[in-house]
Amino acid sequence: MKIGLFGFGKAGKAVASVILQSKDHSLQWIYRKTNRLTTRDAADFLGIESDDPGYFYSDKKMSVEALLKEHPVDAIIDFSSKEGIYMYGESAAENEIKIISAISHYSDKEVGFLHKLAQKATVFWSPNITLGINYLLYAAQFLKKIAPSVDIEIIEEHFKDKQGISGTAIRIADVLDVKDEKINTIRAGGIVGKHEVIFGFPFQTVRLIHESISRDAFGNGALFAAEHLINKKPGFYKFEDLLHPYFKV
Amino acid sequence: MKIGLFGFGKAGKAVASVILQSKDHSLQWIYRKTNRLTTRDAADFLGIESDDPGYFYSDKKMSVEALLKEHPVDAIIDFSSKEGIYMYGESAAENEIKIISAISHYSDKEVGFLHKLAQKATVFWSPNITLGINYLLYAAQFLKKIAPSVDIEIIEEHFKDKQGISGTAIRIADVLDVKDEKINTIRAGGIVGKHEVIFGFPFQTVRLIHESISRDAFGNGALFAAEHLINKKPGFYKFEDLLHPYFKV
Amino acid sequence: MKIGLFGFGKAGKAVASVILQSKDHSLQWIYRKTNRLTTRDAADFLGIESDDPGYFYSDKKMSVEALLKEHPVDAIIDFSSKEGIYMYGESAAENEIKIISAISHYSDKEVGFLHKLAQKATVFWSPNITLGINYLLYAAQFLKKIAPSVDIEIIEEHFKDKQGISGTAIRIADVLDVKDEKINTIRAGGIVGKHEVIFGFPFQTVRLIHESISRDAFGNGALFAAEHLINKKPGFYKFEDLLHPYFKV
Amino acid sequence: MKIGLFGFGKAGKAVASVILQSKDHSLQWIYRKTNRLTTRDAADFLGIESDDPGYFYSDKKMSVEALLKEHPVDAIIDFSSKEGIYMYGESAAENEIKIISAISHYSDKEVGFLHKLAQKATVFWSPNITLGINYLLYAAQFLKKIAPSVDIEIIEEHFKDKQGISGTAIRIADVLDVKDEKINTIRAGGIVGKHEVIFGFPFQTVRLIHESISRDAFGNGALFAAEHLINKKPGFYKFEDLLHPYFKV
Repeated sequence: MKIGLFGFGKAGKAVASVILQSKDHSLQWIYRKTNRLTTRDAADFLGIESDDPGYFYSDKKMSVEALLKEHPVDAIIDFSSKEGIYMYGESAAENEIKIISAISHYSDKEVGFLHKLAQKATVFWSPNITLGINYLLYAAQFLKKIAPSVDIEIIEEHFKDKQGISGTAIRIADVLDVKDEKINTIRAGGIVGKHEVIFGFPFQTVRLIHESISRDAFGNGALFAAEHLINKKPGFYKFEDLLHPYFKV
Repeated sequence: MKIGLFGFGKAGKAVASVILQSKDHSLQWIYRKTNRLTTRDAADFLGIESDDPGYFYSDKKMSVEALLKEHPVDAIIDFSSKEGIYMYGESAAENEIKIISAISHYSDKEVGFLHKLAQKATVFWSPNITLGINYLLYAAQFLKKIAPSVDIEIIEEHFKDKQGISGTAIRIADVLDVKDEKINTIRAGGIVGKHEVIFGFPFQTVRLIHESISRDAFGNGALFAAEHLINKKPGFYKFEDLLHPYFKV
Repeated sequence: MKIGLFGFGKAGKAVASVILQSKDHSLQWIYRKTNRLTTRDAADFLGIESDDPGYFYSDKKMSVEALLKEHPVDAIIDFSSKEGIYMYGESAAENEIKIISAISHYSDKEVGFLHKLAQKATVFWSPNITLGINYLLYAAQFLKKIAPSVDIEIIEEHFKDKQGISGTAIRIADVLDVKDEKINTIRAGGIVGKHEVIFGFPFQTVRLIHESISRDAFGNGALFAAEHLINKKPGFYKFEDLLHPYFKV
Repeated sequence: MKIGLFGFGKAGKAVASVILQSKDHSLQWIYRKTNRLTTRDAADFLGIESDDPGYFYSDKKMSVEALLKEHPVDAIIDFSSKEGIYMYGESAAENEIKIISAISHYSDKEVGFLHKLAQKATVFWSPNITLGINYLLYAAQFLKKIAPSVDIEIIEEHFKDKQGISGTAIRIADVLDVKDEKINTIRAGGIVGKHEVIFGFPFQTVRLIHESISRDAFGNGALFAAEHLINKKPGFYKFEDLLHPYFKV
């Protein structure tokens, strides 16, 4: 697939790196609000060998509308900010480009806009776009269904300076319908990110654990989404919609 | 449900203990090949307060045929030995009693006999009848389906004197189609039983862990099976057949 | 060593069981405030084969003074209650019997009394008398000394109905001088007891974990103490005093 | 302290990065066998803001003898290769510069040379120069001393492509005097590095776990060594020699 990327912060860089190294997909361009980089393309900037064009664009250089026409892509992956969707949403929908958004914190307004776009475009949104976390959310809900009265506790561990409770932990608590008091927050040193769900039965314990090694996991998750959206009709999709078919016997 | 139990070894005792303490089910009797116990019933023997009859029977006291007629049950739970099924199989099938076998090591002959019985009776067999392990088997297979090329390793930990590789670990390796070399066997002190499946992705790791606290977990698993078989037609059932409906959206 | 035991509650029973099975030590008797047991001795009650006398005594049968003279012991192990020490303290000190107390919650009054007894007797007190926890306390303090600015968090996991924060976790926080907010309390199912200390460095993490399998661990800890007190002069000893000599190079 | 660094491979870069960011130490220079980098200094190359000089030198630019005179340092940290010690050993010893070597695989010849240098210089060698692993080695030996008959197993987890058993795991097995069969080797995905020592007691389990987050841990370990060697007389030192004084009561 030909992919265009919005956003080139820490996560965006990691995602670009993964796409550049993928044999099945090519990074056509990266769009940034402002671009002061002097390097020509992402492969050069990141020190990766790749034949993908991966050029940087910004609104000073070219409008999004023009970009989508001159350098067409199959899918846009969005790691920019919650405002990003307004830059490319309409044009992408018109050009039948799939939209894959990994923005963590949308307000209701943006979510509404996504749903509106989904009437004519294939729109996917995941606030934590890793395969592992979405699997964990799915598998945990399944165990809760089987054993509704099991005791559930959540442990999330992150680096010392991470503020607040992890959004992913709140999401886990949410889908399992357990109170936020059951989230235990560990902040220590440089822990990249660990989420553990403990299911306590009277005579046995089940633990589901996800450990992040690097942000590059976002890249693999985004590509997993892209690949699973190829033949999907217009509509609004979440990560669990992509996982569900794997359960057909 | 009214339940009859075959076998009163370590696991059988633990299962009896759980049924005696259950409000929804009653332990009608326990059948043992030979019975030298002087205590009158299982509640007395185990020091549990219960109104369940739970009397001990053996072939010296009464034939299985007579027992099933005089003290009818809804289900037989079998924790005896691989020969046990021949003692009660035919009679149970004739009397429309559900058969729940937790025997770990059947030969092909017994499995064949179970399938024959399943033509007229509701027959269930699980070599490790805990909810946790069966959930883990199910959830692990699902992740393997989503990510076929993920690296998988298995760690099993048990008490010092446990001989050989754990049958459950071999089962896990089997359903995930990984080689037995990927099973890492830990033997140390008094560890009751721990199974861990590690899924290694390039930038993240997922771990599914099951820890046994006591054999009583077999009792809860057997009751889970019994409850889910109540309205099941004759046929042969495995634990995953009971878990599958929970995935219907 | 010849050992006398005060207390025969859950922990006391477990300790008696371990001593009865030890080849190096013998359980002379168990003293209980009231004794309604009809079984003759502890081995019989617990179903353990042993040549130890292990008879039950209570104040209705014999005074502690008389017991210590007629059935002398080398050490008293106390798993009774905080009042227990007043029953045997003076007599034990006079008869040069070592005192090993595993009472978790003494008030200042009892601790004062222990120190008074320690002027003429060898007195040992450990509120959590397992080898593993005391090792963990020791090893954790050592790491804190080496790396005073490391981030520390504590996780303690116990069965659902355990009330309050674990005393052991509070003790760990205390010796490491970290705030109680750093204790994360998990209550789920039938978890016997797990304590984890996380040391978070910028680029690495160290975890010290203690998992309880059964109360019998108290028995091994008490015997470890007994063996290490054999040649100790009168004085007041804590578990770390016994561990310290192992560090001499 | 003023520090000179030999070696600028993956580990060397990480160490340079840590020293450049340290307020208490300054990176004077990096010596490489050949230097084709066009960037002027390490701070520039690594994108770190720092006032440290951190210039690159090679034998084409200046001999080690001249470098040590013109740009004197308090300590040399060596992450180059086993031959590195021959480049700077004699000169460093003559100039009373402390030698800190983190080379993993020396032959006997190099170890012999280090000991010879130690007659006049302060020489330190650690094949795994992280604080966490050395703490774990120390703490594990201590537990083994207390409980000589405890069952010990080791688990080491690393990324898929790591060849052979981890040298650190072999070292752990060595100091604990357990057979190599007790090392369980996990290779999966992108796991940076995890070492777990399991101590199995009959009724409790103790686990010591070290998890690597990044190679930068080597930098902190090297600086820990440097700081603890400041007032050390000439002689040969290992990491445990630096940890030992922390145990003085």
